[in-house]
Amino acid sequence: MKMILPIFVLSLLFSSSYAALQDFCVGDLSAPEGPAGYSCKKPAKVTVDDFVFSGLGAAGNTSNIIKAAVTPAFSAQFPGVNGLGVSVARLDLAPGGVVPMHTHPGGSEVLIVVQGSICAGFISSANAVYFKPLKKGDIMVFPQGLLHFQINAGGGPALAFVSFSSPSPGLQILDYALFGNNLPSELVEKTTFLDDAQVKKLKGVLGGTG
Amino acid sequence: MKMILPIFVLSLLFSSSYAALQDFCVGDLSAPEGPAGYSCKKPAKVTVDDFVFSGLGAAGNTSNIIKAAVTPAFSAQFPGVNGLGVSVARLDLAPGGVVPMHTHPGGSEVLIVVQGSICAGFISSANAVYFKPLKKGDIMVFPQGLLHFQINAGGGPALAFVSFSSPSPGLQILDYALFGNNLPSELVEKTTFLDDAQVKKLKGVLGGTG
Amino acid sequence: MKMILPIFVLSLLFSSSYAALQDFCVGDLSAPEGPAGYSCKKPAKVTVDDFVFSGLGAAGNTSNIIKAAVTPAFSAQFPGVNGLGVSVARLDLAPGGVVPMHTHPGGSEVLIVVQGSICAGFISSANAVYFKPLKKGDIMVFPQGLLHFQINAGGGPALAFVSFSSPSPGLQILDYALFGNNLPSELVEKTTFLDDAQVKKLKGVLGGTG
Amino acid sequence: MKMILPIFVLSLLFSSSYAALQDFCVGDLSAPEGPAGYSCKKPAKVTVDDFVFSGLGAAGNTSNIIKAAVTPAFSAQFPGVNGLGVSVARLDLAPGGVVPMHTHPGGSEVLIVVQGSICAGFISSANAVYFKPLKKGDIMVFPQGLLHFQINAGGGPALAFVSFSSPSPGLQILDYALFGNNLPSELVEKTTFLDDAQVKKLKGVLGGTG
Amino acid sequence: MKMILPIFVLSLLFSSSYAALQDFCVGDLSAPEGPAGYSCKKPAKVTVDDFVFSGLGAAGNTSNIIKAAVTPAFSAQFPGVNGLGVSVARLDLAPGGVVPMHTHPGGSEVLIVVQGSICAGFISSANAVYFKPLKKGDIMVFPQGLLHFQINAGGGPALAFVSFSSPSPGLQILDYALFGNNLPSELVEKTTFLDDAQVKKLKGVLGGTG
Amino acid sequence: MKMILPIFVLSLLFSSSYAALQDFCVGDLSAPEGPAGYSCKKPAKVTVDDFVFSGLGAAGNTSNIIKAAVTPAFSAQFPGVNGLGVSVARLDLAPGGVVPMHTHPGGSEVLIVVQGSICAGFISSANAVYFKPLKKGDIMVFPQGLLHFQINAGGGPALAFVSFSSPSPGLQILDYALFGNNLPSELVEKTTFLDDAQVKKLKGVLGGTG
Repeated sequence: MKMILPIFVLSLLFSSSYAALQDFCVGDLSAPEGPAGYSCKKPAKVTVDDFVFSGLGAAGNTSNIIKAAVTPAFSAQFPGVNGLGVSVARLDLAPGGVVPMHTHPGGSEVLIVVQGSICAGFISSANAVYFKPLKKGDIMVFPQGLLHFQINAGGGPALAFVSFSSPSPGLQILDYALFGNNLPSELVEKTTFLDDAQVKKLKGVLGGTG
Repeated sequence: MKMILPIFVLSLLFSSSYAALQDFCVGDLSAPEGPAGYSCKKPAKVTVDDFVFSGLGAAGNTSNIIKAAVTPAFSAQFPGVNGLGVSVARLDLAPGGVVPMHTHPGGSEVLIVVQGSICAGFISSANAVYFKPLKKGDIMVFPQGLLHFQINAGGGPALAFVSFSSPSPGLQILDYALFGNNLPSELVEKTTFLDDAQVKKLKGVLGGTG
Repeated sequence: MKMILPIFVLSLLFSSSYAALQDFCVGDLSAPEGPAGYSCKKPAKVTVDDFVFSGLGAAGNTSNIIKAAVTPAFSAQFPGVNGLGVSVARLDLAPGGVVPMHTHPGGSEVLIVVQGSICAGFISSANAVYFKPLKKGDIMVFPQGLLHFQINAGGGPALAFVSFSSPSPGLQILDYALFGNNLPSELVEKTTFLDDAQVKKLKGVLGGTG
Repeated sequence: MKMILPIFVLSLLFSSSYAALQDFCVGDLSAPEGPAGYSCKKPAKVTVDDFVFSGLGAAGNTSNIIKAAVTPAFSAQFPGVNGLGVSVARLDLAPGGVVPMHTHPGGSEVLIVVQGSICAGFISSANAVYFKPLKKGDIMVFPQGLLHFQINAGGGPALAFVSFSSPSPGLQILDYALFGNNLPSELVEKTTFLDDAQVKKLKGVLGGTG
Repeated sequence: MKMILPIFVLSLLFSSSYAALQDFCVGDLSAPEGPAGYSCKKPAKVTVDDFVFSGLGAAGNTSNIIKAAVTPAFSAQFPGVNGLGVSVARLDLAPGGVVPMHTHPGGSEVLIVVQGSICAGFISSANAVYFKPLKKGDIMVFPQGLLHFQINAGGGPALAFVSFSSPSPGLQILDYALFGNNLPSELVEKTTFLDDAQVKKLKGVLGGTG
Repeated sequence: MKMILPIFVLSLLFSSSYAALQDFCVGDLSAPEGPAGYSCKKPAKVTVDDFVFSGLGAAGNTSNIIKAAVTPAFSAQFPGVNGLGVSVARLDLAPGGVVPMHTHPGGSEVLIVVQGSICAGFISSANAVYFKPLKKGDIMVFPQGLLHFQINAGGGPALAFVSFSSPSPGLQILDYALFGNNLPSELVEKTTFLDDAQVKKLKGVLGGTG
């Protein structure tokens, strides 16, 4: 009966390599973090629920002035992607909604339009502008670190999912970076050539000081 | 007027660095390919259409025996993602549809359920099984290189988008690899312990020879 | 006497950089693990024995049904390779021995035949089959993540050493993944198109349940 | 005479590996470029001058409105660094000079102040502001992709050299990206919340249209 | 007959992704080389012989003064490993044979002793010395870029295979680098503190000039 | 007033992603180290002083026999560069000063001459020699892992800053590796072909034993 493989034989055969074989590294948010990501949860404690995330199922709250909501599933929210080089997020845009100019310092992005239409674009290092209205089913890629934006281009709500080339791509929103912290107005003005009144107006709106 | 920056001054200032600044490398499918991807299209020929892909807008044809269709937007189909570490695909599952057991040798995957419900799972190197029914809005991650599958778990059609950590993750479908080519039946049997009748039956179905 | 370099001078000169200079990161298997590997053993505790491993010196026990044994020296067995992008294993094949169809999700492999002859092969994502009988001294490369196998092709025992492009390449044996765990038979059948009888037969052999 | 090694013996010994041994890949700017950089110049044509660059020896021209000049030695200017993961640039700041808010999408930066004093800073994804006056000999690191700036903080000229973690880190200057191209004013305003007058004023200064 | 999958259906289903799916990048030594390796041979021209190399089957010629031979299977000799992060070499040591002090600038190494005994060692950046006699079956790892050596430690011939973490790890033999080229003796002496007579003696042996 | 963005709305909008967004990983030298670098300091404890280092401001002490001093700002001295792929060092050369033949196993280097003139060079794996006198403002690149040196080529002191492609490039000084430790003279001689008297002389100078 040459097809019969007694389980005890084969399992012994390879058993020495089973102990620490890890194909994944579910992030343990309470353990030390390193340059490559979070420490790994002990394999014995990992369950299927570490690989599934339901936080993108509900629409984000767009009852705000930009009429938009971004809901991330990065490694900090979804530790299952830790170390795996990929993460996603959900983007809800009410009519008139805008995701303001921003960058992801740590990863490239692909936008997938699932509902409605979105005008999306980015600016290259060479200052070339690439933007286009996207309809349902269209996808667009935004290379790592470049300024980009998304605007609802239709009359109804728009929904998109976005993919990143990193489990922790980061998110730097231009207005927040310039006007939403304690960077002195004088430094903002010197380094952006914006008028003092403009800077102070937006600092007021976004809660910046100095 | 200290805010006035004559354009000719600043543009001269940095002009030497503009010539070859590339934030992206849109694939030129007709030029040599290397281990890191396709050669780059000349920057002067790049337009916004290189960064947008409409091929995922229409449902794939699921009028087939597995009642499923996978439509990739890898670098071979969407050269804009070349070199950027990310790609996506569309997955359509008619009622009863199945994406059979497969791996992506070159990347990890995140599945985003957009419509319907899907039972998805993977098996680790340690032979642990992780599977769960997913509803609309749920996401699940499949670590690089591991066997995984997706099955329509509802009564209606299901739609998902999947993200990969590579612009060219590859796709090895188990049944195709074993039964859809000229790998001799004897070798299939010796290396899988499957019965000869089973191997020949599936070779017949999938067009394999030998 | 321009050739005389008092030791105290030179050693002071560079001493500030000596404290934490690490060319290696011998794995501390008891400390937290991260996506890039194990934490490093304290340099002061590292000895030459951390870089030497004798576990591949003896033949593996091939008195089993597949008449084969794989003995790994991955970072879990040989922590000296942690973080260094390389590991090795020993492969013993008695007459008639087979290493069944498997993948290494985390690395490419080079097989070096040291004794006897081995028929080895792999299947690409495009379902092309590459296999060939190898004699003593031949080497063959198996790209990352692809299904491959090795069969003793001679009348006597065969011995090979295999190299990997990762200190922890992983090992997913197809039969174990499908039949050696609690993945329900119905799911196996739906995702592989194997007959129920075949699945149950091999589940019986390999100890699978469900 | 055991120390005597006839040259013809040793050189034959290793000769087969000499043909294509490349420790470097000097960029051939006229050949195809890929995601990892330029194609390599043929080794036989490489001379020491490929590894030396004199373009940073002279001060950049700071007789402009920002009283600053950045002179890059990226792979496009200094092909010797192609593929080597590092590049440098020279920064000249006349009294009152400013390098406006900008990012390097492709690399982290270390600034080394060689003359004068410079106030430098960056803003993190979490909108935390890190800035400090630096004196001669001080160094400061700016993590990849984050907005940062440098301002002459002394009464005389300042000189700095900057190092990057990439041979082609890119350079996106905020004002250029927003106001120095054909990105429509309406899109700038919607995505930055800047006033129309402000946008049009800076578009006028920087030569933007639309 | 729910198991029947007409081949034309499944093959159409995934056909769009087959065109450029590459799991490997067999080096085309006649095409441009980039920082990540050689350009890829066209998939249609790839055969199993691209993945198999027989050049390590015969012992190298050790009838030379160091009584040793190194036979590489790097990407330049074995293009099948191009882009795959791994390569191997064969090491023959006659009685009294020595592989002189050398480094691999581009990769870490694992030595596998297949016959005889070898004394192998390396020196760390912190100047710690790690060396040990190795017997048949022992393995030892040499971290990337560090000086190391191998000496036949037994009375008979020794044979080893070595694995590298790179398809093109490079090889810099100390004596060759110092004495086997046109580096002026004065520069050798100033930078090594060796005596003029010693430098000139070894330059004579190794064919160096100047 | 469509420009008004109440701060509480926007900050809530993205707040879930703020918790663990890390653009950097300032090294915590007291926590476990891994293959990718030190563990990260808690973000809340990071200040601008973590990104600034003043240790390169003062000239190193060149009152020694080689009349040279190297002052590193690697991650062990300047934890702000941990994980960021870049570091720098300061090089002081008094008249007649020499940085002896050495390698950086972990990174490529760019030398920037800030004062004086320096003769710098390296030797490739193919034993080609590349050296040249450099004047103030010249830069030269030394590919990873190759032997290189720097010699003061002028009558006065020389100053240079060097950049590396790694936060921890390592430093292996040839004379230290061969003569400054307990590597037995016999092994040094066998693996370098140096005369016994030469080895013992330099061991005496550099404090080596054995």
